Amino acid sequence: MTGTAPAPFTADDYRARMARAARAAADAGLAGLLVAPGPDMVWLTGYAPPADTERLTLLVLAPGRDPVLVVPTLEAPDAARAAGASALTLRDWTDGKDPYAVTAALLDASGRFGISDNAWAMHLLGLQRTLPGTSYASLTEALPMLRAVKDAAELELLAAAGAAADQAFEEIRKVAFAGRREYEVGADLAGLLRAFGHSRVDFTIVGSGPNGANPHHEMGDRLIERGDMVVLDFGGLKDGYGSDTTRTVHVGEPSDEERRVHDIVREAQEAGFRAVRPGVPCQEVDRAARAVIAEAGYGEYFIHRTGHGIGVTTHEPPYMIEGEEQPLVPGMCFSVEPGIYLPGRFGVRIEDIVTVTEDGGRRLNDTTREMVIVD
Amino acid sequence: MTGTAPAPFTADDYRARMARAARAAADAGLAGLLVAPGPDMVWLTGYAPPADTERLTLLVLAPGRDPVLVVPTLEAPDAARAAGASALTLRDWTDGKDPYAVTAALLDASGRFGISDNAWAMHLLGLQRTLPGTSYASLTEALPMLRAVKDAAELELLAAAGAAADQAFEEIRKVAFAGRREYEVGADLAGLLRAFGHSRVDFTIVGSGPNGANPHHEMGDRLIERGDMVVLDFGGLKDGYGSDTTRTVHVGEPSDEERRVHDIVREAQEAGFRAVRPGVPCQEVDRAARAVIAEAGYGEYFIHRTGHGIGVTTHEPPYMIEGEEQPLVPGMCFSVEPGIYLPGRFGVRIEDIVTVTEDGGRRLNDTTREMVIVD
Repeated sequence: MTGTAPAPFTADDYRARMARAARAAADAGLAGLLVAPGPDMVWLTGYAPPADTERLTLLVLAPGRDPVLVVPTLEAPDAARAAGASALTLRDWTDGKDPYAVTAALLDASGRFGISDNAWAMHLLGLQRTLPGTSYASLTEALPMLRAVKDAAELELLAAAGAAADQAFEEIRKVAFAGRREYEVGADLAGLLRAFGHSRVDFTIVGSGPNGANPHHEMGDRLIERGDMVVLDFGGLKDGYGSDTTRTVHVGEPSDEERRVHDIVREAQEAGFRAVRPGVPCQEVDRAARAVIAEAGYGEYFIHRTGHGIGVTTHEPPYMIEGEEQPLVPGMCFSVEPGIYLPGRFGVRIEDIVTVTEDGGRRLNDTTREMVIVD
Repeated sequence: MTGTAPAPFTADDYRARMARAARAAADAGLAGLLVAPGPDMVWLTGYAPPADTERLTLLVLAPGRDPVLVVPTLEAPDAARAAGASALTLRDWTDGKDPYAVTAALLDASGRFGISDNAWAMHLLGLQRTLPGTSYASLTEALPMLRAVKDAAELELLAAAGAAADQAFEEIRKVAFAGRREYEVGADLAGLLRAFGHSRVDFTIVGSGPNGANPHHEMGDRLIERGDMVVLDFGGLKDGYGSDTTRTVHVGEPSDEERRVHDIVREAQEAGFRAVRPGVPCQEVDRAARAVIAEAGYGEYFIHRTGHGIGVTTHEPPYMIEGEEQPLVPGMCFSVEPGIYLPGRFGVRIEDIVTVTEDGGRRLNDTTREMVIVD
């Protein structure tokens, strides 16, 4: 039930990804990549350890050498069953031995290495101590776009995850909102995501009334009332790939102001989407969406970036943010999710996953972006 | 629903823990502690961010200064609601700003800091780059026993979690094993842990027949058969504190060899337990258990350490392992869990959580350690 990612890829797919990553490392002037448990490891090997603990598990990729997975002895049998296991060598170490010495033997003692963002600091310190001549760069900084461009099979899985999230929205808009608590609607949402094929629910944000003005409020025990604006932001993993969509609904008839704010966010989201095409820097997507909100006088209430990439995780590069000059490339997938948050009153956010096509963008979420009135 | 730990502690409790941690840092010659989201942060502040992402959240504790929590702006409202929030200052940073500069302003530029084991390598690299004169030690290495000695309220919560796990075992031994798949029994176990008050299930290992010989096999679709030995290792969090217990049951009558191996492990577990008393180095608990297995001729089949600490996590220091000379202190809580693993055939493991008392040890699990026969 654990140990492998639920994605339909073969050992050859993983072998090709690892070779591509090692080449990209060499191109970036790195002596290799050190990949910790987490999304990079899943994407490169299909292996997800039962838990990420103080015991070192590390994939070592070096140009011109075969990939090696350093793994605790008692997790080696799990690792050997991963989809990509036949494309790598397992190097196991037993409790009480020094895993950094085992790893160091695989590394150029004066090399610069890319290391997973989420590798444990403890393990980085262990490597720095064992090989003081090495230096390190975070993998996202060194190779930010390693997983960013999705191939056809990945795009299909992301589209399927998006479609499942859309199905969940079509059902949730039919349930009762008024008189129920946020977490009850959130539980409905989570159940719907699972019913439509998600194996993991990462978040089901239900931000009603003033709670919607906190963009990272998840859900609470607030009783939803008639007249509330409600931000619904939900997603997770289906067959190993992510969904993430937001719609803001209204319980009963909205006020003119609520309608106006929702319209502005919808136009901002549309503007962000229309900015998407190959070659455009990521920050232009942010600027396009932000300009609409700023022009309408709500600039100070849009307090987060416009989007983030999605793939084997629901949050990854590329980021649609001021300062990100990375040009968009066909196959990239990310959210476009502007919002307006009026403290103590209400919030509105609208979010679709968008993929870059040869000549523009394509949304992977297709439910209406008009304000939906719920009961 | 998120943002706070479900433990009954007050802001004063958290203030005292932070002050104690800062003093311990000073005693260890450190200029401060940098605490990432995770168990240390929960224990020190009651705050658990909705997700651990690339956005820096970091608790900065320095002797003689007030605690500061560096937090992304959009998560600041959640942080402000944490049980320990009134005992610290929030320093928020907005997307696009450099969080390492914000943090650096709080640090002695030539200091040595303890940093959470599980802090992201990306964040450690950011700090090392911003303040090249600083140096770092993993928090577990610098202050391994920071959370190891539990106070009375914590012990009560651990005992309650252990009792709930015991209740789950008393029920699971009544269910049908033969003819069902491991994951079905595992689902029963998870349901029982929840029914008896666990808010989180960390693992429900069901290792039947040869699968039991892999100590970190979780569960699979193997059909359990009459004649199988089945390792059941399960635990999680109840009211913020952990349970972790293992019993090995047999489907129908065991063979003489199975009975003998189970007896050896039971005696080893008893020997490990009897070694527990204040002042005894952790490694002596491991040696006591291991000696029984080695003398019986199965030494090479006991392939992991004898135990690990438990508290707000199910895996933490102190470790009962050869080389760990830390003396036991009253209030420490850890597992004693020897095992014998016969590759391709079967495994046996018996595990209790034990707490150190003034004059010995006390088990927090009380179900029978004799082999239970199931149907």
